[in-house]
Amino acid sequence: MKVVIIGSGNVAYHLANAFVLKGINLIQIFGRNENDLQEIALKTGVPFSTKILDNADLYIIAVNDGALEEVSQLITKKNCIVAHTSGSLPIEILQGEYRKAVIYPLQTFSKSKELEYHKIPFFLEAQNTEDYLFIENLALKISDHVEASSYEKRKYVHLSAVFACNFVNHLFARAKEITDAHDIPFKYLLPLIEETTHKIFQVEPKEAQTGPSVRNDVRITKMQEDLLNGEFLKIYKTMNESIKEMYEL
Amino acid sequence: MKVVIIGSGNVAYHLANAFVLKGINLIQIFGRNENDLQEIALKTGVPFSTKILDNADLYIIAVNDGALEEVSQLITKKNCIVAHTSGSLPIEILQGEYRKAVIYPLQTFSKSKELEYHKIPFFLEAQNTEDYLFIENLALKISDHVEASSYEKRKYVHLSAVFACNFVNHLFARAKEITDAHDIPFKYLLPLIEETTHKIFQVEPKEAQTGPSVRNDVRITKMQEDLLNGEFLKIYKTMNESIKEMYEL
Ligand SMILES: NC(=O)c1ccc[n+]([C@@H]2O[C@H](COP(=O)([O-])OP(=O)(O)OC[C@H]3O[C@@H](n4cnc5c(N)ncnc54)[C@H](OP(=O)(O)O)[C@@H]3O)[C@@H](O)[C@H]2O)c1
Ligand SMILES: NC(=O)c1ccc[n+]([C@@H]2O[C@H](COP(=O)([O-])OP(=O)(O)OC[C@H]3O[C@@H](n4cnc5c(N)ncnc54)[C@H](OP(=O)(O)O)[C@@H]3O)[C@@H](O)[C@H]2O)c1
Repeated sequence: MKVVIIGSGNVAYHLANAFVLKGINLIQIFGRNENDLQEIALKTGVPFSTKILDNADLYIIAVNDGALEEVSQLITKKNCIVAHTSGSLPIEILQGEYRKAVIYPLQTFSKSKELEYHKIPFFLEAQNTEDYLFIENLALKISDHVEASSYEKRKYVHLSAVFACNFVNHLFARAKEITDAHDIPFKYLLPLIEETTHKIFQVEPKEAQTGPSVRNDVRITKMQEDLLNGEFLKIYKTMNESIKEMYEL
Repeated sequence: MKVVIIGSGNVAYHLANAFVLKGINLIQIFGRNENDLQEIALKTGVPFSTKILDNADLYIIAVNDGALEEVSQLITKKNCIVAHTSGSLPIEILQGEYRKAVIYPLQTFSKSKELEYHKIPFFLEAQNTEDYLFIENLALKISDHVEASSYEKRKYVHLSAVFACNFVNHLFARAKEITDAHDIPFKYLLPLIEETTHKIFQVEPKEAQTGPSVRNDVRITKMQEDLLNGEFLKIYKTMNESIKEMYEL
Protein backbone atom coordinates (compact mmCIF):
# COMPACT_ATOMS: atom_id res chain seq x y z
CA MET A 1 0.00 0.00 0.00
CA LYS A 2 1.23 3.44 -0.94
CA VAL A 3 0.31 6.41 1.21
CA VAL A 4 0.45 10.19 0.65
CA ILE A 5 0.01 12.71 3.47
CA ILE A 6 -1.38 16.12 2.59
CA GLY A 7 -0.60 19.00 4.94
CA SER A 8 2.49 19.90 6.92
CA GLY A 9 1.10 20.84 10.31
CA ASN A 10 1.21 19.07 13.65
CA VAL A 11 -0.84 16.03 12.68
CA ALA A 12 0.89 15.57 9.31
CA TYR A 13 4.27 15.75 11.03
CA HIS A 14 3.49 13.09 13.61
CA LEU A 15 1.58 10.76 11.27
CA ALA A 16 4.46 10.87 8.81
CA ASN A 17 6.91 10.12 11.59
CA ALA A 18 4.82 7.27 12.98
CA PHE A 19 4.32 5.74 9.52
CA VAL A 20 8.01 5.77 8.72
CA LEU A 21 8.92 4.28 12.10
CA LYS A 22 6.55 1.39 11.37
CA GLY A 23 7.76 0.82 7.82
CA ILE A 24 4.56 2.01 6.14
CA ASN A 25 5.19 2.98 2.54
CA LEU A 26 4.72 6.74 2.70
CA ILE A 27 5.64 7.88 -0.80
CA GLN A 28 5.08 11.64 -0.47
CA ILE A 29 4.21 14.53 1.75
CA PHE A 30 2.30 17.15 -0.15
CA GLY A 31 1.49 20.67 0.94
CA ARG A 32 1.77 24.37 0.32
CA ASN A 33 4.22 25.31 3.06
CA GLU A 34 7.74 24.51 1.84
CA ASN A 35 9.51 25.20 5.11
CA ASP A 36 7.25 22.87 7.02
CA LEU A 37 7.39 20.22 4.29
CA GLN A 38 11.16 20.38 4.38
CA GLU A 39 11.19 19.92 8.14
CA ILE A 40 9.07 16.76 7.86
CA ALA A 41 11.18 15.46 4.97
CA LEU A 42 14.32 15.96 7.07
CA LYS A 43 12.79 14.14 10.00
CA THR A 44 11.33 11.23 8.03
CA GLY A 45 13.34 10.94 4.84
CA VAL A 46 10.10 11.05 2.82
CA PRO A 47 10.19 13.32 -0.26
CA PHE A 48 7.87 16.27 -0.34
CA SER A 49 6.37 18.09 -3.23
CA THR A 50 3.86 20.74 -4.12
CA LYS A 51 2.37 18.50 -6.83
CA ILE A 52 0.36 15.46 -5.72
CA LEU A 53 1.55 12.02 -6.86
CA ASP A 54 -1.28 10.05 -8.44
CA ASN A 55 -0.19 6.49 -7.72
CA ALA A 56 -1.11 6.18 -4.02
CA ASP A 57 -3.78 3.90 -2.55
CA LEU A 58 -4.51 6.20 0.35
CA TYR A 59 -4.36 9.99 0.70
CA ILE A 60 -4.59 11.39 4.23
CA ILE A 61 -5.55 15.04 4.35
CA ALA A 62 -4.37 16.66 7.60
CA VAL A 63 -5.10 20.34 7.01
CA ASN A 64 -7.16 22.83 9.03
CA ASP A 65 -10.80 21.84 9.28
CA GLY A 66 -11.73 25.01 7.39
CA ALA A 67 -9.51 24.12 4.42
CA LEU A 68 -10.50 20.46 4.20
CA GLU A 69 -13.33 20.83 1.70
CA GLU A 70 -11.18 22.90 -0.67
CA VAL A 71 -8.05 20.76 -0.38
CA SER A 72 -10.05 17.56 -0.87
CA GLN A 73 -10.87 18.75 -4.41
CA LEU A 74 -7.22 18.66 -5.39
CA ILE A 75 -7.40 14.87 -5.65
CA THR A 76 -8.83 14.00 -9.02
CA LYS A 77 -7.94 10.33 -8.94
CA LYS A 78 -10.94 8.02 -8.51
CA ASN A 79 -9.62 4.60 -7.56
CA CYS A 80 -8.21 5.42 -4.13
CA ILE A 81 -9.19 6.16 -0.55
CA VAL A 82 -9.06 9.74 0.74
CA ALA A 83 -9.24 10.19 4.51
CA HIS A 84 -9.44 13.25 6.72
CA THR A 85 -8.25 13.38 10.34
CA SER A 86 -10.86 15.64 11.94
CA GLY A 87 -12.93 14.72 14.99
CA SER A 88 -15.78 17.04 14.18
CA LEU A 89 -16.39 16.85 10.46
CA PRO A 90 -18.43 14.21 8.59
CA ILE A 91 -16.93 11.96 5.96
CA GLU A 92 -18.97 13.85 3.34
CA ILE A 93 -16.89 17.00 3.79
CA LEU A 94 -14.54 15.35 1.30
CA GLN A 95 -15.41 16.50 -2.24
CA GLY A 96 -14.32 14.04 -4.90
CA GLU A 97 -15.18 10.88 -6.76
CA TYR A 98 -12.81 8.72 -4.71
CA ARG A 99 -13.82 6.49 -1.77
CA LYS A 100 -13.88 8.38 1.52
CA ALA A 101 -12.70 7.64 5.04
CA VAL A 102 -11.82 9.20 8.39
CA ILE A 103 -8.73 8.48 10.48
CA TYR A 104 -9.14 10.45 13.69
CA PRO A 105 -6.27 10.25 16.19
CA LEU A 106 -7.31 11.24 19.71
CA GLN A 107 -4.30 13.18 20.94
CA THR A 108 -2.99 16.73 21.17
CA PHE A 109 -0.18 17.06 18.64
CA SER A 110 2.63 19.59 18.66
CA LYS A 111 5.71 19.24 16.51
CA SER A 112 7.92 20.17 19.45
CA LYS A 113 6.64 17.34 21.61
CA GLU A 114 7.52 13.67 21.07
CA LEU A 115 4.68 11.17 21.51
CA GLU A 116 4.30 7.47 22.24
CA TYR A 117 2.36 6.63 19.10
CA HIS A 118 1.18 3.21 20.21
CA LYS A 119 -0.89 4.84 22.98
CA ILE A 120 -2.89 7.08 20.65
CA PRO A 121 -6.45 5.79 20.10
CA PHE A 122 -7.59 5.92 16.47
CA PHE A 123 -11.25 6.25 15.50
CA LEU A 124 -11.95 5.10 11.99
CA GLU A 125 -14.75 5.35 9.45
CA ALA A 126 -14.97 4.14 5.86
CA GLN A 127 -17.66 3.67 3.23
CA ASN A 128 -17.25 -0.07 2.78
CA THR A 129 -15.78 -3.01 4.64
CA GLU A 130 -12.80 -3.47 2.39
CA ASP A 131 -11.70 0.13 2.83
CA TYR A 132 -12.32 -0.10 6.55
CA LEU A 133 -10.06 -3.14 6.84
CA PHE A 134 -7.42 -1.33 4.79
CA ILE A 135 -7.24 1.69 7.10
CA GLU A 136 -7.67 -0.49 10.17
CA ASN A 137 -4.65 -2.52 9.12
CA LEU A 138 -2.70 0.72 8.77
CA ALA A 139 -3.81 2.16 12.12
CA LEU A 140 -3.07 -1.11 13.94
CA LYS A 141 0.54 -0.87 12.80
CA ILE A 142 0.86 2.29 14.89
CA SER A 143 -1.61 2.02 17.71
CA ASP A 144 -2.87 -0.40 20.36
CA HIS A 145 -6.36 1.14 20.32
CA VAL A 146 -8.21 1.22 17.03
CA GLU A 147 -12.01 1.48 16.88
CA ALA A 148 -14.70 1.94 14.31
CA SER A 149 -16.63 5.10 15.01
CA SER A 150 -19.57 6.73 13.27
CA TYR A 151 -19.62 10.52 12.85
CA GLU A 152 -22.19 10.67 15.66
CA LYS A 153 -19.82 8.92 18.06
CA ARG A 154 -16.70 10.71 16.83
CA LYS A 155 -18.32 14.06 17.60
CA TYR A 156 -18.64 13.04 21.24
CA VAL A 157 -15.11 11.67 21.36
CA HIS A 158 -13.88 15.07 20.20
CA LEU A 159 -16.21 16.89 22.58
CA SER A 160 -14.92 14.93 25.56
CA ALA A 161 -11.38 15.82 24.43
CA VAL A 162 -12.32 19.51 24.33
CA PHE A 163 -13.36 19.26 27.99
CA ALA A 164 -10.47 17.06 29.16
CA CYS A 165 -7.70 18.72 27.13
CA ASN A 166 -8.50 22.11 25.58
CA PHE A 167 -10.50 23.48 28.52
CA VAL A 168 -8.12 21.94 31.05
CA ASN A 169 -5.20 23.68 29.38
CA HIS A 170 -7.13 26.94 29.49
CA LEU A 171 -7.58 26.53 33.24
CA PHE A 172 -3.81 26.09 33.51
CA ALA A 173 -3.37 29.31 31.53
CA ARG A 174 -5.82 31.18 33.80
CA ALA A 175 -4.13 29.75 36.92
CA LYS A 176 -0.84 31.06 35.59
CA GLU A 177 -2.34 34.53 35.23
CA ILE A 178 -3.33 34.37 38.90
CA THR A 179 0.13 33.27 40.05
CA ASP A 180 1.89 35.78 37.78
CA ALA A 181 -0.22 38.62 39.15
CA HIS A 182 0.68 37.71 42.73
CA ASP A 183 4.34 36.97 42.39
CA ILE A 184 3.93 33.21 42.93
CA PRO A 185 6.19 31.00 40.77
CA PHE A 186 3.88 29.00 38.48
CA LYS A 187 6.23 26.04 38.81
CA TYR A 188 4.94 25.56 42.36
CA LEU A 189 1.67 24.41 40.82
CA LEU A 190 3.28 21.73 38.68
CA PRO A 191 3.50 18.94 41.30
CA LEU A 192 -0.16 19.59 42.11
CA ILE A 193 -1.13 19.46 38.44
CA GLU A 194 0.85 16.26 37.96
CA GLU A 195 -0.82 14.67 40.97
CA THR A 196 -4.30 15.75 39.82
CA THR A 197 -3.73 13.90 36.57
CA HIS A 198 -2.06 10.85 38.13
CA LYS A 199 -4.98 10.41 40.50
CA ILE A 200 -7.50 9.73 37.75
CA PHE A 201 -5.40 6.84 36.47
CA GLN A 202 -6.35 5.15 39.75
CA VAL A 203 -9.53 6.79 40.99
CA GLU A 204 -12.68 7.80 39.08
CA PRO A 205 -12.53 11.58 38.57
CA LYS A 206 -15.89 11.98 40.28
CA GLU A 207 -14.47 10.29 43.40
CA ALA A 208 -11.21 12.25 43.22
CA GLN A 209 -12.86 15.69 43.54
CA THR A 210 -11.47 17.89 46.31
CA GLY A 211 -11.65 21.59 47.16
CA PRO A 212 -14.07 24.09 48.67
CA SER A 213 -16.82 23.65 46.05
CA VAL A 214 -17.36 19.93 46.63
CA ARG A 215 -17.19 20.47 50.39
CA ASN A 216 -19.86 23.13 49.79
CA ASP A 217 -17.74 25.47 51.92
CA VAL A 218 -19.76 28.64 51.35
CA ARG A 219 -17.47 30.78 53.48
CA ILE A 220 -14.48 30.02 51.28
CA THR A 221 -16.26 30.02 47.93
CA LYS A 222 -17.73 33.43 48.79
CA MET A 223 -14.30 34.72 49.84
CA GLN A 224 -12.74 33.40 46.63
CA GLU A 225 -15.44 34.99 44.46
CA ASP A 226 -14.56 38.32 46.06
CA LEU A 227 -10.95 37.90 44.85
CA LEU A 228 -12.06 37.51 41.22
CA ASN A 229 -13.61 39.43 38.38
CA GLY A 230 -14.22 39.22 34.62
CA GLU A 231 -13.67 35.85 32.97
CA PHE A 232 -12.07 34.46 36.15
CA LEU A 233 -15.25 35.09 38.12
CA LYS A 234 -17.45 33.64 35.35
CA ILE A 235 -15.34 30.48 35.27
CA TYR A 236 -15.37 30.24 39.06
CA LYS A 237 -19.15 30.56 39.31
CA THR A 238 -19.82 28.18 36.41
CA MET A 239 -17.53 25.47 37.75
CA ASN A 240 -18.79 25.92 41.29
CA GLU A 241 -22.41 25.57 40.11
CA SER A 242 -21.56 22.54 38.01
CA ILE A 243 -19.80 20.84 40.92
CA LYS A 244 -22.82 21.52 43.14
CA GLU A 245 -25.11 20.03 40.53
CA MET A 246 -22.97 16.91 40.10
CA TYR A 247 -22.79 16.17 43.83
CA GLU A 248 -26.35 17.36 44.55
CA LEU A 249 -25.14 19.95 47.07
CA MET B 1 11.29 19.82 69.00
CA LYS B 2 8.21 17.81 69.86
CA VAL B 3 5.28 17.86 67.46
CA VAL B 4 1.62 16.84 67.79
CA ILE B 5 -0.71 16.50 64.80
CA ILE B 6 -4.41 17.05 65.35
CA GLY B 7 -6.83 15.47 62.89
CA SER B 8 -6.80 12.15 61.08
CA GLY B 9 -7.80 13.08 57.55
CA ASN B 10 -5.79 13.24 54.34
CA VAL B 11 -3.42 16.01 55.36
CA ALA B 12 -2.82 14.64 58.86
CA TYR B 13 -2.06 11.21 57.38
CA HIS B 14 0.54 12.48 54.92
CA LEU B 15 2.15 15.03 57.24
CA ALA B 16 2.55 12.35 59.90
CA ASN B 17 4.07 10.00 57.36
CA ALA B 18 6.44 12.65 55.99
CA PHE B 19 7.52 13.68 59.50
CA VAL B 20 8.32 10.14 60.56
CA LEU B 21 10.23 9.45 57.36
CA LYS B 22 12.41 12.47 58.10
CA GLY B 23 12.98 11.66 61.76
CA ILE B 24 10.93 14.55 63.12
CA ASN B 25 9.87 13.90 66.70
CA LEU B 26 6.12 13.42 66.26
CA ILE B 27 4.97 12.46 69.73
CA GLN B 28 1.24 12.07 69.13
CA ILE B 29 -1.60 12.09 66.68
CA PHE B 30 -4.74 13.39 68.29
CA GLY B 31 -8.27 13.26 66.90
CA ARG B 32 -11.82 12.11 67.33
CA ASN B 33 -11.94 9.37 64.72
CA GLU B 34 -10.42 6.23 66.23
CA ASN B 35 -10.40 4.15 63.07
CA ASP B 36 -8.54 6.81 61.15
CA LEU B 37 -6.15 7.48 64.03
CA GLN B 38 -5.38 3.78 64.22
CA GLU B 39 -4.67 3.65 60.49
CA ILE B 40 -2.13 6.49 60.82
CA ALA B 41 -0.59 4.92 63.92
CA LEU B 42 -0.16 1.65 62.04
CA LYS B 43 1.46 3.41 59.11
CA THR B 44 3.79 5.63 61.14
CA GLY B 45 4.30 3.95 64.49
CA VAL B 46 3.27 7.15 66.27
CA PRO B 47 0.84 6.69 69.18
CA PHE B 48 -2.58 8.23 68.91
CA SER B 49 -4.93 9.39 71.57
CA THR B 50 -8.14 11.24 72.12
CA LYS B 51 -6.53 13.36 74.84
CA ILE B 52 -4.00 15.99 73.77
CA LEU B 53 -0.48 15.73 75.21
CA ASP B 54 0.61 19.03 76.70
CA ASN B 55 4.36 18.80 76.29
CA ALA B 56 4.74 19.58 72.56
CA ASP B 57 6.44 22.64 71.07
CA LEU B 58 4.26 22.63 67.97
CA TYR B 59 0.65 21.55 67.40
CA ILE B 60 -0.48 21.23 63.80
CA ILE B 61 -4.23 21.26 63.36
CA ALA B 62 -5.26 19.55 60.12
CA VAL B 63 -9.03 19.39 60.43
CA ASN B 64 -11.79 20.67 58.13
CA ASP B 65 -11.69 24.42 57.68
CA GLY B 66 -15.12 24.65 59.28
CA ALA B 67 -13.96 22.88 62.46
CA LEU B 68 -10.67 24.74 62.84
CA GLU B 69 -11.90 27.52 65.09
CA GLU B 70 -13.57 25.07 67.47
CA VAL B 71 -10.73 22.55 67.54
CA SER B 72 -8.15 25.30 68.10
CA GLN B 73 -9.77 25.99 71.46
CA LEU B 74 -8.90 22.53 72.73
CA ILE B 75 -5.29 23.64 73.18
CA THR B 76 -5.06 25.42 76.49
CA LYS B 77 -1.28 25.44 76.71
CA LYS B 78 0.25 28.89 76.20
CA ASN B 79 3.96 28.40 75.57
CA CYS B 80 3.78 26.66 72.22
CA ILE B 81 3.11 27.22 68.53
CA VAL B 82 -0.21 26.16 67.05
CA ALA B 83 -0.41 26.01 63.24
CA HIS B 84 -3.25 25.34 60.85
CA THR B 85 -2.80 23.95 57.32
CA SER B 86 -5.50 25.84 55.41
CA GLY B 87 -4.86 27.90 52.29
CA SER B 88 -7.85 30.14 52.73
CA LEU B 89 -8.09 30.99 56.40
CA PRO B 90 -6.19 33.70 58.28
CA ILE B 91 -3.86 32.95 61.13
CA GLU B 92 -6.37 34.61 63.48
CA ILE B 93 -8.89 31.81 63.01
CA LEU B 94 -6.92 30.06 65.74
CA GLN B 95 -8.51 30.83 69.12
CA GLY B 96 -6.07 30.51 71.99
CA GLU B 97 -3.38 32.22 73.99
CA TYR B 98 -0.57 30.32 72.26
CA ARG B 99 1.58 31.68 69.39
CA LYS B 100 -0.02 31.11 65.99
CA ALA B 101 1.27 29.95 62.63
CA VAL B 102 0.23 28.54 59.26
CA ILE B 103 1.83 25.61 57.45
CA TYR B 104 0.07 25.35 54.10
CA PRO B 105 1.15 22.48 51.82
CA LEU B 106 0.22 23.05 48.18
CA GLN B 107 -0.86 19.60 47.06
CA THR B 108 -3.96 17.44 46.72
CA PHE B 109 -3.81 14.79 49.41
CA SER B 110 -5.58 11.45 49.44
CA LYS B 111 -4.67 8.66 51.82
CA SER B 112 -4.81 6.13 49.02
CA LYS B 113 -2.20 7.94 46.94
CA GLU B 114 1.52 8.03 47.77
CA LEU B 115 3.29 11.35 47.28
CA GLU B 116 6.83 12.59 46.75
CA TYR B 117 6.93 14.85 49.78
CA HIS B 118 10.05 16.76 48.80
CA LYS B 119 8.20 18.22 45.79
CA ILE B 120 5.36 19.74 47.83
CA PRO B 121 5.72 23.53 48.20
CA PHE B 122 5.05 24.79 51.72
CA PHE B 123 3.76 28.32 52.39
CA LEU B 124 4.45 29.47 55.93
CA GLU B 125 3.34 32.24 58.22
CA ALA B 126 4.18 32.96 61.85
CA GLN B 127 3.77 35.82 64.30
CA ASN B 128 7.46 36.36 65.02
CA THR B 129 10.82 35.56 63.46
CA GLU B 130 11.79 32.89 65.96
CA ASP B 131 8.61 30.92 65.36
CA TYR B 132 8.97 31.38 61.63
CA LEU B 133 12.46 29.93 61.70
CA PHE B 134 11.20 27.05 63.82
CA ILE B 135 8.49 26.01 61.35
CA GLU B 136 10.74 26.78 58.38
CA ASN B 137 13.34 24.40 59.77
CA LEU B 138 10.64 21.75 60.05
CA ALA B 139 9.26 22.29 56.54
CA LEU B 140 12.73 22.27 55.00
CA LYS B 141 13.28 18.78 56.37
CA ILE B 142 10.47 17.59 54.13
CA SER B 143 10.35 19.90 51.16
CA ASP B 144 12.60 21.56 48.58
CA HIS B 145 10.26 24.56 48.28
CA VAL B 146 9.49 26.53 51.41
CA GLU B 147 8.30 30.13 51.26
CA ALA B 148 7.01 32.77 53.62
CA SER B 149 3.55 33.83 52.58
CA SER B 150 1.14 36.37 53.99
CA TYR B 151 -2.58 35.53 54.17
CA GLU B 152 -3.11 37.81 51.15
CA LYS B 153 -0.67 35.81 49.06
CA ARG B 154 -1.75 32.43 50.39
CA LYS B 155 -5.32 33.13 49.31
CA TYR B 156 -4.13 33.50 45.72
CA VAL B 157 -1.95 30.39 45.95
CA HIS B 158 -5.03 28.46 46.99
CA LEU B 159 -7.18 30.13 44.34
CA SER B 160 -4.74 29.19 41.57
CA ALA B 161 -4.84 25.62 42.92
CA VAL B 162 -8.63 25.63 42.72
CA PHE B 163 -8.39 26.48 39.02
CA ALA B 164 -5.46 24.16 38.20
CA CYS B 165 -6.56 21.20 40.32
CA ASN B 166 -10.15 21.22 41.61
CA PHE B 167 -11.74 22.66 38.46
CA VAL B 168 -9.48 20.59 36.20
CA ASN B 169 -10.58 17.43 37.98
CA HIS B 170 -14.20 18.50 37.55
CA LEU B 171 -13.63 18.81 33.79
CA PHE B 172 -12.28 15.26 33.84
CA ALA B 173 -15.45 14.17 35.65
CA ARG B 174 -17.67 15.93 33.09
CA ALA B 175 -15.65 14.48 30.21
CA LYS B 176 -16.24 11.04 31.70
CA GLU B 177 -19.98 11.67 31.75
CA ILE B 178 -19.80 12.44 28.03
CA THR B 179 -17.81 9.30 27.20
CA ASP B 180 -20.00 7.11 29.46
CA ALA B 181 -23.15 8.39 27.77
CA HIS B 182 -21.79 7.53 24.33
CA ASP B 183 -20.22 4.18 24.99
CA ILE B 184 -16.65 5.46 24.63
CA PRO B 185 -14.11 3.95 27.07
CA PHE B 186 -12.89 6.82 29.29
CA LYS B 187 -9.44 5.24 29.32
CA TYR B 188 -9.03 6.39 25.71
CA LEU B 189 -8.81 9.94 27.06
CA LEU B 190 -5.97 9.15 29.48
CA PRO B 191 -3.04 9.47 27.03
CA LEU B 192 -4.48 12.81 25.92
CA ILE B 193 -4.86 13.99 29.50
CA GLU B 194 -1.32 12.89 30.32
CA GLU B 195 0.03 14.72 27.29
CA THR B 196 -1.94 17.89 28.11
CA THR B 197 -0.24 17.98 31.50
CA HIS B 198 3.23 17.02 30.22
CA LYS B 199 3.13 19.82 27.69
CA ILE B 200 2.98 22.58 30.28
CA PHE B 201 6.18 21.33 31.87
CA GLN B 202 7.84 22.46 28.64
CA VAL B 203 5.58 25.07 27.07
CA GLU B 204 3.71 27.99 28.69
CA PRO B 205 0.05 26.94 29.00
CA LYS B 206 -1.02 30.00 27.02
CA GLU B 207 1.19 28.85 24.10
CA ALA B 208 0.05 25.24 24.41
CA GLN B 209 -3.64 25.97 23.78
CA THR B 210 -5.24 23.91 20.99
CA GLY B 211 -8.81 23.13 19.93
CA PRO B 212 -11.70 24.78 18.10
CA SER B 213 -12.13 27.70 20.52
CA VAL B 214 -8.60 29.11 20.13
CA ARG B 215 -8.82 28.60 16.35
CA ASN B 216 -12.08 30.56 16.59
CA ASP B 217 -13.67 27.81 14.50
CA VAL B 218 -17.27 29.02 14.73
CA ARG B 219 -18.64 26.15 12.67
CA ILE B 220 -17.35 23.57 15.12
CA THR B 221 -18.02 25.50 18.33
CA LYS B 222 -21.61 26.04 17.18
CA MET B 223 -21.96 22.35 16.31
CA GLN B 224 -20.54 21.34 19.69
CA GLU B 225 -22.89 23.69 21.55
CA ASP B 226 -25.78 21.93 19.84
CA LEU B 227 -24.60 18.63 21.34
CA LEU B 228 -24.74 20.00 24.89
CA ASN B 229 -27.20 21.19 27.49
CA GLY B 230 -27.42 22.05 31.19
CA GLU B 231 -24.15 22.44 33.08
CA PHE B 232 -22.18 21.05 30.11
CA LEU B 233 -23.41 23.86 27.88
CA LYS B 234 -22.74 26.49 30.56
CA ILE B 235 -19.17 25.23 30.98
CA TYR B 236 -18.67 25.10 27.21
CA LYS B 237 -19.86 28.66 26.68
CA THR B 238 -17.95 30.06 29.65
CA MET B 239 -14.66 28.42 28.64
CA ASN B 240 -15.14 29.35 24.99
CA GLU B 241 -15.77 33.00 25.92
CA SER B 242 -12.80 33.04 28.25
CA ILE B 243 -10.50 31.60 25.58
CA LYS B 244 -11.73 34.21 23.11
CA GLU B 245 -11.02 36.95 25.63
CA MET B 246 -7.52 35.67 26.39
CA TYR B 247 -6.48 35.46 22.74
CA GLU B 248 -8.45 38.57 21.68
CA LEU B 249 -10.48 36.60 19.11
N1 LIG C 1 -3.71 19.25 16.44
C1 LIG C 1 -4.34 18.27 17.02
O1 LIG C 1 -4.09 18.04 18.20
C2 LIG C 1 -5.35 17.43 16.25
C3 LIG C 1 -5.78 16.20 16.82
C4 LIG C 1 -6.64 15.39 16.10
C5 LIG C 1 -7.10 15.80 14.84
N2 LIG C 1 -6.70 17.00 14.34
C6 LIG C 1 -7.20 17.37 12.99
O2 LIG C 1 -6.12 17.25 12.09
C7 LIG C 1 -6.24 18.25 11.04
C8 LIG C 1 -4.96 19.06 10.97
O3 LIG C 1 -4.73 19.68 12.23
P1 LIG C 1 -3.29 20.23 12.63
O4 LIG C 1 -3.31 20.48 14.10
O5 LIG C 1 -2.22 19.38 12.05
O6 LIG C 1 -3.30 21.65 11.91
P2 LIG C 1 -2.08 22.67 11.75
O7 LIG C 1 -0.91 22.26 12.57
O8 LIG C 1 -2.66 24.02 11.91
O9 LIG C 1 -1.66 22.46 10.23
C9 LIG C 1 -2.58 22.70 9.19
C10 LIG C 1 -1.94 22.43 7.86
O10 LIG C 1 -2.92 22.68 6.85
C11 LIG C 1 -2.34 23.52 5.86
N3 LIG C 1 -3.37 24.30 5.19
C12 LIG C 1 -4.24 25.18 5.76
N4 LIG C 1 -5.04 25.73 4.82
C13 LIG C 1 -4.66 25.18 3.65
C14 LIG C 1 -5.08 25.36 2.30
N5 LIG C 1 -6.11 26.18 2.00
N6 LIG C 1 -4.45 24.63 1.35
C15 LIG C 1 -3.43 23.81 1.64
N7 LIG C 1 -2.99 23.60 2.90
C16 LIG C 1 -3.59 24.28 3.87
C17 LIG C 1 -1.40 24.37 6.62
O11 LIG C 1 -0.49 24.99 5.76
P3 LIG C 1 0.09 26.47 6.12
O12 LIG C 1 1.18 26.20 7.13
O13 LIG C 1 0.59 26.97 4.83
O14 LIG C 1 -1.05 27.26 6.68
C18 LIG C 1 -0.76 23.34 7.54
O15 LIG C 1 0.22 22.60 6.89
C19 LIG C 1 -7.50 19.04 11.38
O16 LIG C 1 -8.58 18.48 10.66
C20 LIG C 1 -7.67 18.80 12.86
O17 LIG C 1 -9.03 18.92 13.26
C21 LIG C 1 -5.84 17.81 15.01
N1 LIG D 1 -6.95 17.80 51.18
C1 LIG D 1 -6.10 18.64 50.62
O1 LIG D 1 -5.73 18.36 49.48
C2 LIG D 1 -5.57 19.85 51.37
C3 LIG D 1 -4.46 20.53 50.85
C4 LIG D 1 -3.92 21.60 51.55
C5 LIG D 1 -4.52 22.01 52.74
N2 LIG D 1 -5.62 21.37 53.20
C6 LIG D 1 -6.21 21.83 54.49
O2 LIG D 1 -5.90 20.86 55.48
C7 LIG D 1 -6.97 20.79 56.46
C8 LIG D 1 -7.45 19.36 56.56
O3 LIG D 1 -7.89 18.93 55.30
P1 LIG D 1 -8.06 17.36 54.97
O4 LIG D 1 -8.19 17.25 53.49
O5 LIG D 1 -7.04 16.57 55.68
O6 LIG D 1 -9.49 17.08 55.61
P2 LIG D 1 -10.21 15.65 55.79
O7 LIG D 1 -9.46 14.57 55.08
O8 LIG D 1 -11.65 15.88 55.49
O9 LIG D 1 -10.02 15.38 57.35
C9 LIG D 1 -10.54 16.27 58.29
C10 LIG D 1 -10.23 15.78 59.69
O10 LIG D 1 -10.78 16.74 60.59
C11 LIG D 1 -11.52 16.03 61.58
N3 LIG D 1 -12.60 16.86 62.13
C12 LIG D 1 -13.60 17.47 61.45
N4 LIG D 1 -14.40 18.15 62.28
C13 LIG D 1 -13.87 17.97 63.52
C14 LIG D 1 -14.26 18.41 64.82
N5 LIG D 1 -15.31 19.21 64.99
N6 LIG D 1 -13.48 18.02 65.85
C15 LIG D 1 -12.41 17.22 65.67
N7 LIG D 1 -12.00 16.77 64.48
C16 LIG D 1 -12.74 17.14 63.43
C17 LIG D 1 -12.08 14.86 60.83
O11 LIG D 1 -12.53 13.87 61.72
P3 LIG D 1 -13.80 12.93 61.30
O12 LIG D 1 -13.21 11.88 60.39
O13 LIG D 1 -14.25 12.38 62.60
O14 LIG D 1 -14.80 13.82 60.62
C18 LIG D 1 -10.86 14.44 60.03
O15 LIG D 1 -9.96 13.71 60.78
C19 LIG D 1 -8.01 21.79 56.00
O16 LIG D 1 -7.78 23.03 56.65
C20 LIG D 1 -7.71 21.95 54.50
O17 LIG D 1 -8.12 23.21 54.00
C21 LIG D 1 -6.16 20.29 52.55
